[in-house]
Amino acid sequence: MSSTTGDSRQNAPFREIPRATCERLLSEHTVGRVAWNAPDGPQLVPVNYAYYNKTIVFRTAPDGVLSQLARRTNVAFEIDGLDEDARTGWSVVVRGSAERVTQDFNLMELWTKAGPVPWAAGNRPLHIAISPRTITGREVVAR
Amino acid sequence: MSSTTGDSRQNAPFREIPRATCERLLSEHTVGRVAWNAPDGPQLVPVNYAYYNKTIVFRTAPDGVLSQLARRTNVAFEIDGLDEDARTGWSVVVRGSAERVTQDFNLMELWTKAGPVPWAAGNRPLHIAISPRTITGREVVAR
Repeated sequence: MSSTTGDSRQNAPFREIPRATCERLLSEHTVGRVAWNAPDGPQLVPVNYAYYNKTIVFRTAPDGVLSQLARRTNVAFEIDGLDEDARTGWSVVVRGSAERVTQDFNLMELWTKAGPVPWAAGNRPLHIAISPRTITGREVVAR
Repeated sequence: MSSTTGDSRQNAPFREIPRATCERLLSEHTVGRVAWNAPDGPQLVPVNYAYYNKTIVFRTAPDGVLSQLARRTNVAFEIDGLDEDARTGWSVVVRGSAERVTQDFNLMELWTKAGPVPWAAGNRPLHIAISPRTITGREVVAR
């Protein structure tokens, strides 16, 4: 990870994270945040997810706010590892579209292999998948 | 924090976090994520911030993506403390409008008291403030 961002004017220690590393980070973590433009304005909700077949999958309840994403919706999704004390960290941002998982998605396989089991109890039969359009990451290194 | 969410159908261990606690959490932390509807779709960016005079303030560069928020923009802002291993955690979501900090905002006082000093180097003279319209929080407790 030696490449720097193109914005050399700032001389910032932001470093781009290569795509392959971004995907590894996505596969290693289980909690992220999804943002979209809800009818009443931007919405931002943490979810637990699985990165499966190059998509981000999570479960939700049909009556929850995340069920807005059952219908194809542009979203941003973020994971990070930020150390408030050390003032360093990394983030990966996925932009793409969310949509309800349909029959051609092998739910049983997903369940067995990647199982995005919700932390909270309750009936969450609705599976939503985010198909990435872009995946970018950056890190701030210690000064 | 004994109140449960209204959605009793799910019997979920989500608990609402009282407003006062949400504000305390906002004042105790320094890293969050801001989401808005950018011209090319939903955008989601981590920022380091200060909670000052009931607003969320952060600095950015005039040529960065966050400078889109200099003009009044509806946003969502989130902080959380999520434990992937214990599968517990809390989150606070602020929804409101972001805007460039103007002269009637005492920048010098902010600087001295709450100083949202960016982690990354570079010139970030643009101060953005988020005025909350709603502040909500919830936690997932261990089963």
